[in-house]
Amino acid sequence: MSLLDYFKSSKVSSASLAKERLQILVAHERSSLNQPSYLPQLQKELLEVIQKYVNVGQDAISVSFEQDENQETLELNITLPELITKKP
Amino acid sequence: MSLLDYFKSSKVSSASLAKERLQILVAHERSSLNQPSYLPQLQKELLEVIQKYVNVGQDAISVSFEQDENQETLELNITLPELITKKP
Repeated sequence: MSLLDYFKSSKVSSASLAKERLQILVAHERSSLNQPSYLPQLQKELLEVIQKYVNVGQDAISVSFEQDENQETLELNITLPELITKKP
Repeated sequence: MSLLDYFKSSKVSSASLAKERLQILVAHERSSLNQPSYLPQLQKELLEVIQKYVNVGQDAISVSFEQDENQETLELNITLPELITKKP
């Protein structure tokens, strides 16, 4: 299953919530742990970029970071404010 | 299955290649398509941030973008150069 398939399969249940959501996933497969991880710094910069596009506070952003012997994974989940639709 | 589980389950086969790889996924669930997508511009900025950390050319980066009625997905796959390990 590709990652795109994963997102497609998980879409139905979340779409029913009618919420806007932005999810960012970074996976770094490392063949060696000799060098320090740059994911924590990368995370900071990714959030700075995203906040140019979406107007959300820190409380709307949840971050998970997992690390094991040859993979690091960073997951950012951002709940976006509901759009205000003008009615005539 | 959470996204982190997905990465864990897909790890074994790719780890056997002993390649370094960075994968970034952005999924935007949209409740309305009234506003233009910002993912193409976000993609450009994400690549700029990443290239501060990894020294790769455009040919090492593959990009997929998919869009349907309520979700957009952007996938960046980056093959990192192999580390040069000094031997005594």
